[in-house]
Amino acid sequence: MIQYKRGLVIGRFQPFHNGHLELVHEILNECEELVLAIGSAQFNYLLKDPFTAGERIEMIHASLSSQRIDPSRVFLIPLANFENNACWFEYLKSMVPQFDILYSGNEYVRYLVAKKIIVKVHTFKNKPKFNGENIRKLIVNDGKWDDLVPIPVKEIIKNIGGTERIRMLAKSDTYPQKW
Amino acid sequence: MIQYKRGLVIGRFQPFHNGHLELVHEILNECEELVLAIGSAQFNYLLKDPFTAGERIEMIHASLSSQRIDPSRVFLIPLANFENNACWFEYLKSMVPQFDILYSGNEYVRYLVAKKIIVKVHTFKNKPKFNGENIRKLIVNDGKWDDLVPIPVKEIIKNIGGTERIRMLAKSDTYPQKW
Amino acid sequence: MIQYKRGLVIGRFQPFHNGHLELVHEILNECEELVLAIGSAQFNYLLKDPFTAGERIEMIHASLSSQRIDPSRVFLIPLANFENNACWFEYLKSMVPQFDILYSGNEYVRYLVAKKIIVKVHTFKNKPKFNGENIRKLIVNDGKWDDLVPIPVKEIIKNIGGTERIRMLAKSDTYPQKW
Amino acid sequence: MIQYKRGLVIGRFQPFHNGHLELVHEILNECEELVLAIGSAQFNYLLKDPFTAGERIEMIHASLSSQRIDPSRVFLIPLANFENNACWFEYLKSMVPQFDILYSGNEYVRYLVAKKIIVKVHTFKNKPKFNGENIRKLIVNDGKWDDLVPIPVKEIIKNIGGTERIRMLAKSDTYPQKW
Amino acid sequence: MIQYKRGLVIGRFQPFHNGHLELVHEILNECEELVLAIGSAQFNYLLKDPFTAGERIEMIHASLSSQRIDPSRVFLIPLANFENNACWFEYLKSMVPQFDILYSGNEYVRYLVAKKIIVKVHTFKNKPKFNGENIRKLIVNDGKWDDLVPIPVKEIIKNIGGTERIRMLAKSDTYPQKW
Amino acid sequence: MIQYKRGLVIGRFQPFHNGHLELVHEILNECEELVLAIGSAQFNYLLKDPFTAGERIEMIHASLSSQRIDPSRVFLIPLANFENNACWFEYLKSMVPQFDILYSGNEYVRYLVAKKIIVKVHTFKNKPKFNGENIRKLIVNDGKWDDLVPIPVKEIIKNIGGTERIRMLAKSDTYPQKW
Repeated sequence: MIQYKRGLVIGRFQPFHNGHLELVHEILNECEELVLAIGSAQFNYLLKDPFTAGERIEMIHASLSSQRIDPSRVFLIPLANFENNACWFEYLKSMVPQFDILYSGNEYVRYLVAKKIIVKVHTFKNKPKFNGENIRKLIVNDGKWDDLVPIPVKEIIKNIGGTERIRMLAKSDTYPQKW
Repeated sequence: MIQYKRGLVIGRFQPFHNGHLELVHEILNECEELVLAIGSAQFNYLLKDPFTAGERIEMIHASLSSQRIDPSRVFLIPLANFENNACWFEYLKSMVPQFDILYSGNEYVRYLVAKKIIVKVHTFKNKPKFNGENIRKLIVNDGKWDDLVPIPVKEIIKNIGGTERIRMLAKSDTYPQKW
Repeated sequence: MIQYKRGLVIGRFQPFHNGHLELVHEILNECEELVLAIGSAQFNYLLKDPFTAGERIEMIHASLSSQRIDPSRVFLIPLANFENNACWFEYLKSMVPQFDILYSGNEYVRYLVAKKIIVKVHTFKNKPKFNGENIRKLIVNDGKWDDLVPIPVKEIIKNIGGTERIRMLAKSDTYPQKW
Repeated sequence: MIQYKRGLVIGRFQPFHNGHLELVHEILNECEELVLAIGSAQFNYLLKDPFTAGERIEMIHASLSSQRIDPSRVFLIPLANFENNACWFEYLKSMVPQFDILYSGNEYVRYLVAKKIIVKVHTFKNKPKFNGENIRKLIVNDGKWDDLVPIPVKEIIKNIGGTERIRMLAKSDTYPQKW
Repeated sequence: MIQYKRGLVIGRFQPFHNGHLELVHEILNECEELVLAIGSAQFNYLLKDPFTAGERIEMIHASLSSQRIDPSRVFLIPLANFENNACWFEYLKSMVPQFDILYSGNEYVRYLVAKKIIVKVHTFKNKPKFNGENIRKLIVNDGKWDDLVPIPVKEIIKNIGGTERIRMLAKSDTYPQKW
Repeated sequence: MIQYKRGLVIGRFQPFHNGHLELVHEILNECEELVLAIGSAQFNYLLKDPFTAGERIEMIHASLSSQRIDPSRVFLIPLANFENNACWFEYLKSMVPQFDILYSGNEYVRYLVAKKIIVKVHTFKNKPKFNGENIRKLIVNDGKWDDLVPIPVKEIIKNIGGTERIRMLAKSDTYPQKW
């Protein structure tokens, strides 16, 4: 049942997975529109952030299309990081359309915005499975990962050589690579 | 007639006006999809850049909706400026989905990307009228501006106090204000 | 009569002059404590910003002492500029102690903080005389400037070679020098 | 016995504790005035840097007042970090009033400024107890921390929900949290 | 007659011209070695800074070679700008080999380094002719420019389309273009 | 046998060692000219990056001279880091003279530039011995390090107090020091 005009979710979406997709469905049951803010947009080609902002936008856009989600109801907005946490929320507000509720599974995010906006706790059903780090590790270790992401994500990752990229990043000692 | 998979246009959209809208229509006749890159995304509350990235996204989104433009065909992506012009095009590519052709009325932009991508010259039909600076000046001078922008842009500007904002910025001596 | 716990004033204080000093007295009649935020703290050795943050702090501290203003009632806080105007006020709040009222003669500043805090319009009595630009110009043109600033400011400027510095900056073509 | 005009101490003061307070007393026995430079001023809401620059200024100001330390003898100055260590000392000098001696318990700081200024080694008496990391850990682990800080620091931390903040940060996995 | 171990000159070298070349010869009469710091290294494709750091290095290297200047006596070092002027000299020192004397025709630069290093005033013989701005203007206005620069500079500018680039930049309204 | 006009190698050169020197010889057998890009140029006085860009330039310059390597064949160019990896290669190209082949022992670097330039894998013969980290560790642990670097590097490190610097950095707890 639609209760809010616009909800917002923040994620790095490295990559966008089925847990995210389910969350989109849930929010679109409660909100007319959804803003998906793509965090750490300035990073790419890192083990923790292998995909560019542009690649992540393509993956999400294609996933929503494949699910027949009305695209006019979703805003995809890349968001660079911001050093001063105390004013992070105002920064966020300046970069995205107005929103009424924030969904977050992250206590830190909820803490930063507390009392400034309605916040709804969100948790992924099977978090150990459906999270980006797990998927990236499965890719490195030649595990079964492709049923954890929407089909278009799987295809785009393959087309852009994403699995090779992540495996290369896992071997590199250039950066103190963090998962 | 659709000739390209994806076209890209860059603008500051301060504000999005009927010239932009017509351009969107033209490109969607030639391309399956369109990326609208919203430049100078980090600036706001300046005479040259009065609206935040978030406000500009709302204006454009609402304008496209009101024109029954299929939203699944358009990507709206804020883009911060980039100091090193020689690698500006690679920066652009990292922040947006892959594209095949760039439309630009700006010789400088065309020069920076020459030989790296197909470029098509675009010129607004009535440039002296349909350009952001002219519209911001009309707002300051109490001229007739609201028929130069799509109706939703007019409404959002009024709702957020945009005309008062621009007039205040024009009077302020805080910044060496440039049109 | 004390009406507020803490007031805040922002200035570049290039240099701190008698208009500023009078304002300090006025605010300390209305507020228990005063925060003086020293703007553009990162700039120095420029025609518009000739003095370092450290030098400005010394000038103001010495001026307040010479006036027997209780130093426990005043906070002197350097503040670097901030690009994203829409979240400038939250940035300000993160950098200074909590305050209840903002005094400003600048319509732009008042606009940015409107509805977020009590704001009181302040105007310097003789603004053409008591403003930093005028004082810097007088220094360049060998005019009478030293009765426009508190005695300790005059002395510090002389001790650090401030008049020579400003005259040199006025002649230099290194920067597109702005007054 | 007063031997120097002005001494300088740098710390992050996360939070200001009794060891810092004792150091202030010691320096004010040797110097007419003291500059307290508050390092990492741009950070906040991090496990290592939970408090904003503004909050830290309030804590220190209130602690000095409660100890009847003459506030006209102390400068509290926030200082953002600086990437190029080789010119860090010149950066420091541009941001604070002139000083004659630097007190530091940190060999790295002493090394960077060696031969450029008089340096005096300082060590906290009970360093394992009186240091910010220990206090933040005690807060997280529900230990006894409040007798390690001046009473006004304890009160401000409680008023701004500082203990909850630090506990939340300790649980969060958003940042690779460092103590 | 060699009097110093190493001299330093700073310029933007947009482009390197015969005045610069003559200066190199003069300094190499007085110093064993010369550091040429290439300022504003981060800028390019601007009317004031049309050439990249890499292009400028090539031009200077080729010019020195063509003059049979012993390359082991010259260091070519790109230098990005630095915001805090008060510590600019320490920044410079961290980026280049140790030097004993600075040659400068710029009073501002001389002022910033005064008392920190030996400084020798340098003036180009025919400054109205031999300066980058004049050369760039001649290029735009189809004047005779190529006898003002060493032959290899002329050739490199032609090979990389430098004259077209500068003319395009002069026409563009993208940036508030400054000469 | 000379096969290419210009080769490029990137390193941090903390410090320049005999492995690097051998690589220079090898490349100068295959290329007319060599660009040595000195990475992480903005860092210094860190355990991982103890020497300034200027110091590193001096070490390399002196080493090449002592080996009678024709200095007109080598470009030494400091290069600051760059956040957006996807456009790192274009950034590199803007900062150095044009080159035809990149030599790298680093898979990450090779991956980033793949298909954009010829790349040749390079591996140091005795990598566990000839690498900067090993040399810095030997310095800290009072091991035998000075036969791993060219004689001028050893001398410069001694002259600038480099061994004391590295030992001090190894003890410091100011930065989360990484080898």
